[in-house]
Amino acid sequence: MGMIGGGPGSFIGSIHRTAALMDGEIELVCGAFSSSAEKSKLTGEQLYLEKERVYGSFEEMIHTERSLPDEKRMDFVSIVTPNHVHFEPAKLTLQNGFHVVMDKPMTFDLREAKELIKIVEETGKYLCLTHTYSGYPMIKEARQQVKSGNFGRIRKVFVVYPQGWLSSYLEGSDQKQASWRTDPSKSGIAGAMGDIGTHAFNLAEYITGLQVIKICADINIVVEGRKLDDDGAVLLKFDNNASGVLIASQVLTGEENDLTIKVYGETGGLEWKHSDPNSLLIKYPDKPVEIWRAGTGYLSPFAKHNTRTPSGHPEGFIEAFANHYRNFALCVRAQLTGETPKEEWLDFPGVEEGIRGMAFIENVIASGKATEKWVDFKV
Amino acid sequence: MGMIGGGPGSFIGSIHRTAALMDGEIELVCGAFSSSAEKSKLTGEQLYLEKERVYGSFEEMIHTERSLPDEKRMDFVSIVTPNHVHFEPAKLTLQNGFHVVMDKPMTFDLREAKELIKIVEETGKYLCLTHTYSGYPMIKEARQQVKSGNFGRIRKVFVVYPQGWLSSYLEGSDQKQASWRTDPSKSGIAGAMGDIGTHAFNLAEYITGLQVIKICADINIVVEGRKLDDDGAVLLKFDNNASGVLIASQVLTGEENDLTIKVYGETGGLEWKHSDPNSLLIKYPDKPVEIWRAGTGYLSPFAKHNTRTPSGHPEGFIEAFANHYRNFALCVRAQLTGETPKEEWLDFPGVEEGIRGMAFIENVIASGKATEKWVDFKV
Amino acid sequence: MGMIGGGPGSFIGSIHRTAALMDGEIELVCGAFSSSAEKSKLTGEQLYLEKERVYGSFEEMIHTERSLPDEKRMDFVSIVTPNHVHFEPAKLTLQNGFHVVMDKPMTFDLREAKELIKIVEETGKYLCLTHTYSGYPMIKEARQQVKSGNFGRIRKVFVVYPQGWLSSYLEGSDQKQASWRTDPSKSGIAGAMGDIGTHAFNLAEYITGLQVIKICADINIVVEGRKLDDDGAVLLKFDNNASGVLIASQVLTGEENDLTIKVYGETGGLEWKHSDPNSLLIKYPDKPVEIWRAGTGYLSPFAKHNTRTPSGHPEGFIEAFANHYRNFALCVRAQLTGETPKEEWLDFPGVEEGIRGMAFIENVIASGKATEKWVDFKV
Amino acid sequence: MGMIGGGPGSFIGSIHRTAALMDGEIELVCGAFSSSAEKSKLTGEQLYLEKERVYGSFEEMIHTERSLPDEKRMDFVSIVTPNHVHFEPAKLTLQNGFHVVMDKPMTFDLREAKELIKIVEETGKYLCLTHTYSGYPMIKEARQQVKSGNFGRIRKVFVVYPQGWLSSYLEGSDQKQASWRTDPSKSGIAGAMGDIGTHAFNLAEYITGLQVIKICADINIVVEGRKLDDDGAVLLKFDNNASGVLIASQVLTGEENDLTIKVYGETGGLEWKHSDPNSLLIKYPDKPVEIWRAGTGYLSPFAKHNTRTPSGHPEGFIEAFANHYRNFALCVRAQLTGETPKEEWLDFPGVEEGIRGMAFIENVIASGKATEKWVDFKV
Repeated sequence: MGMIGGGPGSFIGSIHRTAALMDGEIELVCGAFSSSAEKSKLTGEQLYLEKERVYGSFEEMIHTERSLPDEKRMDFVSIVTPNHVHFEPAKLTLQNGFHVVMDKPMTFDLREAKELIKIVEETGKYLCLTHTYSGYPMIKEARQQVKSGNFGRIRKVFVVYPQGWLSSYLEGSDQKQASWRTDPSKSGIAGAMGDIGTHAFNLAEYITGLQVIKICADINIVVEGRKLDDDGAVLLKFDNNASGVLIASQVLTGEENDLTIKVYGETGGLEWKHSDPNSLLIKYPDKPVEIWRAGTGYLSPFAKHNTRTPSGHPEGFIEAFANHYRNFALCVRAQLTGETPKEEWLDFPGVEEGIRGMAFIENVIASGKATEKWVDFKV
Repeated sequence: MGMIGGGPGSFIGSIHRTAALMDGEIELVCGAFSSSAEKSKLTGEQLYLEKERVYGSFEEMIHTERSLPDEKRMDFVSIVTPNHVHFEPAKLTLQNGFHVVMDKPMTFDLREAKELIKIVEETGKYLCLTHTYSGYPMIKEARQQVKSGNFGRIRKVFVVYPQGWLSSYLEGSDQKQASWRTDPSKSGIAGAMGDIGTHAFNLAEYITGLQVIKICADINIVVEGRKLDDDGAVLLKFDNNASGVLIASQVLTGEENDLTIKVYGETGGLEWKHSDPNSLLIKYPDKPVEIWRAGTGYLSPFAKHNTRTPSGHPEGFIEAFANHYRNFALCVRAQLTGETPKEEWLDFPGVEEGIRGMAFIENVIASGKATEKWVDFKV
Repeated sequence: MGMIGGGPGSFIGSIHRTAALMDGEIELVCGAFSSSAEKSKLTGEQLYLEKERVYGSFEEMIHTERSLPDEKRMDFVSIVTPNHVHFEPAKLTLQNGFHVVMDKPMTFDLREAKELIKIVEETGKYLCLTHTYSGYPMIKEARQQVKSGNFGRIRKVFVVYPQGWLSSYLEGSDQKQASWRTDPSKSGIAGAMGDIGTHAFNLAEYITGLQVIKICADINIVVEGRKLDDDGAVLLKFDNNASGVLIASQVLTGEENDLTIKVYGETGGLEWKHSDPNSLLIKYPDKPVEIWRAGTGYLSPFAKHNTRTPSGHPEGFIEAFANHYRNFALCVRAQLTGETPKEEWLDFPGVEEGIRGMAFIENVIASGKATEKWVDFKV
Repeated sequence: MGMIGGGPGSFIGSIHRTAALMDGEIELVCGAFSSSAEKSKLTGEQLYLEKERVYGSFEEMIHTERSLPDEKRMDFVSIVTPNHVHFEPAKLTLQNGFHVVMDKPMTFDLREAKELIKIVEETGKYLCLTHTYSGYPMIKEARQQVKSGNFGRIRKVFVVYPQGWLSSYLEGSDQKQASWRTDPSKSGIAGAMGDIGTHAFNLAEYITGLQVIKICADINIVVEGRKLDDDGAVLLKFDNNASGVLIASQVLTGEENDLTIKVYGETGGLEWKHSDPNSLLIKYPDKPVEIWRAGTGYLSPFAKHNTRTPSGHPEGFIEAFANHYRNFALCVRAQLTGETPKEEWLDFPGVEEGIRGMAFIENVIASGKATEKWVDFKV
């Protein structure tokens, strides 16, 4: 694996590396960690990379690596830059024959996303979009239970992504995370909705297997001086006539990151909270609530495949992240060996989810400005 | 106390009686428990009432009791009938010189509510509307903390009232609770929004001290054949520019009654859940979350006044209910003795809250039908 | 009902009254609330009693009430005094033809307890000992599940009663609760073990239906200057060869009153915590943990009989207390009417539990002083 | 890093590898994964090792690696075999100039442990003993808070390690984990007490900084036919006169692995549960309970150093494990570079903890057989 971005001060770059490494399936062999060659070099040293494979630009990395012999050359690229530097490196990577892992939201805007899907289709390479939360085993289980019909027709979906770290004007200091996320030239047209709203949206569609077809959004800039939304609530209609609510906010003072989803069908419901990620509550009308737990023997193959420890040994955010990397790597390896990838391996978010996410951003911002209640969700 | 309603099969009538009795301040002396004289008699016997004070109609009760000597006559009336039998008995009661406790929503429609407030003002009697949840000590504490400025300006309010008991067509059987609640001729224009949405709305305004000024509602009938809404989500704007979301649904399969409210201000936030009513979470941006607990020494006088047990000895729904009764009774007694009621005693929901609740019902149903996003909240 | 004790400053007296009154089955008609006639009078006034039925001593109350006509006379006496004033009033009450409710521990020592059981047997009157915790509906459910064989043979029992209110030398101030509880002349030979250890012991035997046959106790006085134990841990052996641990301490700084019990059998286990009294966790080796909830339709008749509200409407400490009063009252009434009491009504703690509790105190203090590990539990 | 053990069917071997790899500080370069050369080879292939560095025995590995050039040779060995194969490989490793990471309990018996500490002292190499739980950031925080005097003198310590996976006769099947753990020739004299009791014991001493000086143990074989203890409870006395209880059992049907510790001092207390490892409850007598959270800014440097993600992004068992590996690696590297290791790096469990753990096993089994209550804790 080669990495683009993830230099000094990056939070997500280090998460990506840890997640990629932990299962022993992936090795970090090169990187263009910063647009500053010096910073890139510094990070490369800290990561014990060979000097000559620490590059000053992603273009240099892709072109140089391409020319290396098969057994040495990187197999794929991990892109962990801010949103405005997603599309170009992804395009170049794919077109030079490498697979791609990249952070969400997939691109700067929907137009880029539509172009990217074409490139993926043309090149036949894998693209993994790190919507972390669908990597959790109990989220896999949730999806399988909905799919199995355990809850009947789904009627209601509530998904809430609460953060508080932007409840003051943090971008006024030079906090790196806050700065680019609140800057329209780097983030795109959305702030909180792009950063965390897309996760919530993805989770709702992933678990239910449904698609949102109409929305009604209340989008706010709560902190004075901020340039992008930091708060919003969205009423949802799904393609099976279910309705829902999506809340994503970064100004909920005192909240950490407790993404929560509740889904209700005719005959039962489920609840999952990021603060207790190894549990999944299953609810019935006339029976006790059940606490399904990661690592147990009674789970679906999808949940089991994405677990490393026995029940009672908590896995967390990095492992969820690592599940996407491992499944992606298993598919990449299968492509190399000609093996048919298992259904469980293919279950990582890709370019389709990326398109839906970018459409969510555009639709939700448009609906936020609209005066009519319901706006069709257009892709 | 005399009671109107609360005959065989009534859930809330028995709660009212238990709540009224438990503190030894109130005695049940008479009742018109049912429109059927026979059923009324049966209930009266089970309650060990004197036979001659079990009445066949509320009119009979009010007129007869009025003629009794001071020391024997009831002091107030508790009205626990379905919504369409709220206004007439309340009016007659007040106009005959008795105070009133009554269940919510206050009346059948907003017009009646406006008439009732005039009668209350004219007669100078107390009216207590049993919005149970504001009777919980930790809700009192929540209100006091917002009031004290502990959280700065309030920015966000989320209130969710989830129930699942109507997730099937229960009114098809002859379940008494389901039948009248889903019948427009008894409930009024709203189902879930009237039954539990009003509680959620009241709680949000009570804790924050703010008033809703605009709403955008998604109101649904989820269960086929039902005549009134059983599910809804409402975007809110408050008079200080805060925004919020209110969710009330009776089709969330597997949910019991876990009314939850979260309020966030500039410098902190709070969270309360009905499933753990003796705790109040207080959240700060840069300090550990605190679990404030009922019965402790560090609470406000309002919380302390509404507690009977030391910390760690859970009080529940009936005690919250009883707090309204006790505070109401203390005020009634103070009026009799000429004492000035304490601020803590006066802190029970009354006719103003009743008007707001009825306005909520009318506005939310109207917004549910509207095609524009935001609808002004009119009273 | 007449009351002995429960005057100014009493915590438990007021709990007893509230619990007795709330179901409308019991009326407080007289009392000897304090050994000071003046204080008794004061309390009587606050409780709206007839002046002539507020007595200056329990002897006066019992003798006077005995001479009243049937329809006026109290039916039973509630004794809520400190431990050293339990036996004499109970004896006099029973011997004068009244039933008794009394607080635990039953007597000052085991000798008195053995005398009392004889008097109960001779007089044929009911004696209810208010071990509150077995009044909770989910504790009833727990017992029924063990009884039904759901968990196979019981192997392990852990019961922990943690309090922190005596973690400093509170009896140095004139705090009434602390003073008598730490005074051997009023409490007897045990402090924490008598006050709360007996509750834990009773709960363990009640739920499992087993009897402790051997113990090994570590009994401590943690706070300097204190005269009675404020902390202890006890290893247990039961008559079916199960083992267990009982912990009771009043010096666990920061703890409130979160009595917790866990029971494990061959094929499953259960867990109940006083901080969430309306839930009962049921655990299996190969299935999800289940959360059984008070007020639901799937519970045993014993649990249902002891609930007043639908699921999701929390009942608490006072209701658990009230369950004992109500069941006792139903039995007393049945005796008056010649009806056969139902099994559910008879399920309140009585003199047998009182004997076991007093034996626990004596055995545990003896074992605390012993140098050998296991001491036979003698009654 | 080279690995001894961890071949097919090993649970802990794979945990060790994942933990070692995830931070990019350690590379797996060789291994003797099984006493069967064939199985070792199989595992080596799955781990993408160079064929010539997959060895058929630990002796072969150590001797061969020793002869490799500096830049190629492994730096340390990770020993993840059953207990009876701990001492010999550790001894050989150390004496050949390599550092050691090894699983707990450290050796087969106390005698070996005492020999090992001498070898460590003689060779000057690092030995890291993977008592996982002290690797959790909130356990680091707990220790620092006790150390800082936040709770005053510690009075009580409760530590409970509940598992249920051996509640039936699992060793009757050929489940690899169950087989060796219940076999005295592989595990040593203790079953549950060695496997998980040592973790609980280590955690209690680590957090409090105290040492156990007396114990009174109830040690049981609950499942018929089992050869080693599967259940026990131990009363504890510490060197500052605090007392405590340690419970470790593998027959608590339905329990997973929820190791829990509660510590109480004069002025406060703490609580940590493995099921919610990123929270630490801090309790005070007269203030709300506080929930301290991993990843926040207000924690001690020790907690912060052992965290990879911002608050609200849960880390788990593997990360706790990895913390020991990373700190060990930082120390090893510092020794290579001549740097002085930081206090935070040195904070991993070593041979001293190993000795205490082995002494715990011998003392607790002896006390279990004793007839006197208190037995001195001898090392």
